[in-house]
Amino acid sequence: MQSFLNSKDDIVSKAIDGVVAASGGKVARFPVDHSARVVARTDIDKSKVAIVSGGGSGHEPAHAGFVGQGMISAAVCGEIFASPSIDAVLSAILTVTGEAGCLVIVKNYTGDRLNFGLATEKAKALGLNAEMVIIGDDVAIENAPQPRGVAGTLFIHKLAGFMAERGDSLSDIADAVRAAGKGIFSLGSARDTCTVPGNEKIERLAADEVEIGLGIHGEPGVEIAKFPTPEMLVADLAERLEKAIPDDDTRYALLFNNLGGMSEIESSILFADLMEMSLADRVDLVIGPAAMMTALDMPGFSISLCALNDGLREALIAPVGPAAWPGAQTKHVPEAIVPPSVADTSNFTPSDDDNVRRVITAVADACIAHEDEINLLDAKVGDGDTGSTFATAARTALAQIDDLPLANGADLLRALSRMASQNVGGSSGVLFAIMFAGAAENFTRMQKWGSALSYGLEVMEQYGGAKEGDRTMIDAIKPALTVFSRGQTASEIAKAARAGAERTATLTQANAGRSSYLNEESLKGVMDPGAAAIAIIFEALAGEFD
Amino acid sequence: MQSFLNSKDDIVSKAIDGVVAASGGKVARFPVDHSARVVARTDIDKSKVAIVSGGGSGHEPAHAGFVGQGMISAAVCGEIFASPSIDAVLSAILTVTGEAGCLVIVKNYTGDRLNFGLATEKAKALGLNAEMVIIGDDVAIENAPQPRGVAGTLFIHKLAGFMAERGDSLSDIADAVRAAGKGIFSLGSARDTCTVPGNEKIERLAADEVEIGLGIHGEPGVEIAKFPTPEMLVADLAERLEKAIPDDDTRYALLFNNLGGMSEIESSILFADLMEMSLADRVDLVIGPAAMMTALDMPGFSISLCALNDGLREALIAPVGPAAWPGAQTKHVPEAIVPPSVADTSNFTPSDDDNVRRVITAVADACIAHEDEINLLDAKVGDGDTGSTFATAARTALAQIDDLPLANGADLLRALSRMASQNVGGSSGVLFAIMFAGAAENFTRMQKWGSALSYGLEVMEQYGGAKEGDRTMIDAIKPALTVFSRGQTASEIAKAARAGAERTATLTQANAGRSSYLNEESLKGVMDPGAAAIAIIFEALAGEFD
Repeated sequence: MQSFLNSKDDIVSKAIDGVVAASGGKVARFPVDHSARVVARTDIDKSKVAIVSGGGSGHEPAHAGFVGQGMISAAVCGEIFASPSIDAVLSAILTVTGEAGCLVIVKNYTGDRLNFGLATEKAKALGLNAEMVIIGDDVAIENAPQPRGVAGTLFIHKLAGFMAERGDSLSDIADAVRAAGKGIFSLGSARDTCTVPGNEKIERLAADEVEIGLGIHGEPGVEIAKFPTPEMLVADLAERLEKAIPDDDTRYALLFNNLGGMSEIESSILFADLMEMSLADRVDLVIGPAAMMTALDMPGFSISLCALNDGLREALIAPVGPAAWPGAQTKHVPEAIVPPSVADTSNFTPSDDDNVRRVITAVADACIAHEDEINLLDAKVGDGDTGSTFATAARTALAQIDDLPLANGADLLRALSRMASQNVGGSSGVLFAIMFAGAAENFTRMQKWGSALSYGLEVMEQYGGAKEGDRTMIDAIKPALTVFSRGQTASEIAKAARAGAERTATLTQANAGRSSYLNEESLKGVMDPGAAAIAIIFEALAGEFD
Repeated sequence: MQSFLNSKDDIVSKAIDGVVAASGGKVARFPVDHSARVVARTDIDKSKVAIVSGGGSGHEPAHAGFVGQGMISAAVCGEIFASPSIDAVLSAILTVTGEAGCLVIVKNYTGDRLNFGLATEKAKALGLNAEMVIIGDDVAIENAPQPRGVAGTLFIHKLAGFMAERGDSLSDIADAVRAAGKGIFSLGSARDTCTVPGNEKIERLAADEVEIGLGIHGEPGVEIAKFPTPEMLVADLAERLEKAIPDDDTRYALLFNNLGGMSEIESSILFADLMEMSLADRVDLVIGPAAMMTALDMPGFSISLCALNDGLREALIAPVGPAAWPGAQTKHVPEAIVPPSVADTSNFTPSDDDNVRRVITAVADACIAHEDEINLLDAKVGDGDTGSTFATAARTALAQIDDLPLANGADLLRALSRMASQNVGGSSGVLFAIMFAGAAENFTRMQKWGSALSYGLEVMEQYGGAKEGDRTMIDAIKPALTVFSRGQTASEIAKAARAGAERTATLTQANAGRSSYLNEESLKGVMDPGAAAIAIIFEALAGEFD
């Protein structure tokens, strides 16, 4: 499906339904005419100045998503990229405005200026105290007579919403907003155009091109360019913005806006790049990265700056109701955390024990002797290396046997755990490491091999997720340890392991490990190589004990 | 540029830089080895249980974006879709864990189970109180022995983070989390695969297909399907989820997750569809829509449900530090707001005034008489209908002249404003409506035509954005009203209008209106048609007055 916007006859209305449903009853909508929708706070306090904004849709979450405590009182939403009707705007103003009056905020586009403008005048003619401010923050075209209003408008929504919530007067808010508007600068770039529902996508850019200085309606940017890396594109935009702002010591808030089609990781990376540019030295507050003023699915971003003063700082930092506002954070370069060392420096004191040395040697020799046999088995149901995995572990154990704490059970299990995680590849190394670590912990408390190994197996099952019957080495370990726990002889334990291993040849579905990708036919009659190796290990143990 | 992830040699590290830079110093990072990064809170309180989570990257904002007050203490981030190393996990645990212990939360994938598992066991061996919980919430495959962990894991991050922040013990948190984990169910769908950086995109889906029951690593879903509308896809997923949850009266929280590649408007629309399904009747809390657990740029979504109890309700609703958490809202279907009527029902009392009737008639006649001439002018620099626009307005005025309040200046201006907005198309209708509305307001106060019209012009300039010299009708209106304000004769006013109109033929750049898209050559020597029409109007007035 090329877009989930297909086959929708009323995209804007439905999108607004989504905003309302997500708001927890904090906003509601009302229909005005077939071409426009209004979203308003459900907790309007008419003793405070109402903030009305809006414009064409396609910029979600703007503007409906910013309706709520501390931001917009009502958003008037036209069709995609089309200004709402005068009646829709007037209706919004009349719904939310009381004695404190209303500030109407529009982005600088002719349609919005006129329709919101006439609605404002009509509201005034009806006796309401209303003013309109026009925001033109786009610096793409130098000395443009009418710079477009883009994502920087959000600074104004935030400032006006904050002041209104605090109970400031309409004239104070309008004055502050007009002053702040003069210090807002935005610039955007995208690596592709946006798809307007119902229209063919306009293909303007080659695969290695980006567009700079674009608006939020899919209109062409001022320039098509190529950059070897995204970082260089970010550097270029940062430079252009640095040139556009006054060369003084003004501090700025920076808003990083995803134009709608960048993934979260892309957005985060470009923002990280931006924070390394010299432009960031002028910045005290950061907002985003987040999708705030989008151009449908445009894979691009815009950077907006707002000259700060104390009032603006306070206004931008204050928390608000709408979830779409990501909050403003103080720019802060934290020192890297220095973590405690995880290098396992525990030096086990080597100690000797003839029986333990004999048993380990016998088990290791058996693993090495059966390397090819187990590999052949694995070649039928896996990747043919299980024998080598066990043999490698065995060779390591033999090579290091003089350094092992053979006379100390708990330490020996710990040493084996470390050996498994460091020298045995793949999942089995980690699984044995987990089993021996669990066993060591239990041995410390209980000083019993049977209990320790059973507990180790339990821990391995818990983390590994396989259980008896899943066609893994557990099918040999578990019956062996069960017999062990009943105090039976090593031969009987070995027989149980062997029986368990042979039973795996009848299991035609593997629920864990690599064999789980194979079908019944491939598995039938073939022992699980891990289980077979375990049987060999217990048989070697039996040879030493009985 | 196909992706802003190109040419990056350390995507994950850079993405984490972005998360740290956006956090306002609330999180920091530390390097462990070349393959993993850890992000941790900078305000760790070791008297509280630490919450450690993570896994492969590519799921941004998960997991680093959820590090902060009330959620995760540290996130361990592997390479894209690859589990982090055991040392990285252990390092994270050691950094944030104190006497209260640590809960490790992993999504159910073998690599994460084993690596986080062994690290947990190692932490325990070092004397720390640590436990690991594994979340498998995916219901795509019925009775799967090991259901995958997907976006439902976020419920667990939220619950554990809330309880830890409150000071609950590790065992209480682990018990609550394991109980909650049994009541979490997730299902996803996408209209395309994701693009893994450095790999060719796998094209699995035709343009009209979607995939259902997919994981978050680009792995194939359980089914490829076609639906005539996105709404039917949502209905299908909702039905599958309804079948997966127990048939009882349990209430649920619902989390709507953007898998990374849907635009905001798409996401909002699908969420609105979902809220209309019968599944929504089981839901008390909603979280999202938002990108929370993504699969890079996958254009799809997942729906997660979490069975609620009082503790979970409280935990999910509580506010948290990380901006990536969109908050949980009580599901609420607000009543539609009924707006005050904006239908302009003001009935002006018709009144007569011979002079006014004569003037209006003369002006209207002139507009009609010059219709073709002005249209011809507009054909050269616009779309050829300016003459008709004025003539249509004139015909309306003549047809309705007996209903007009001719003897009441303010009301007459209001009536003309309404006539312009209702009967004159395009921007000019709105502009005249604004001018007459402003003039009416001024006339009410001052009772002077000159003052009223000048103020009306000012208001028109303010909203319309054009000024004298921009090659619009203002170039004729403004000089005429200036002469009017000096008390000069109607002939002199008309001359000023004509001179202004003729001057527009020398202006080779239009700064407003449709002519602003034309070049110098096209404009040279051609009067602006709007200004020419204004000159004709003032000449008609002069014929009546002088």
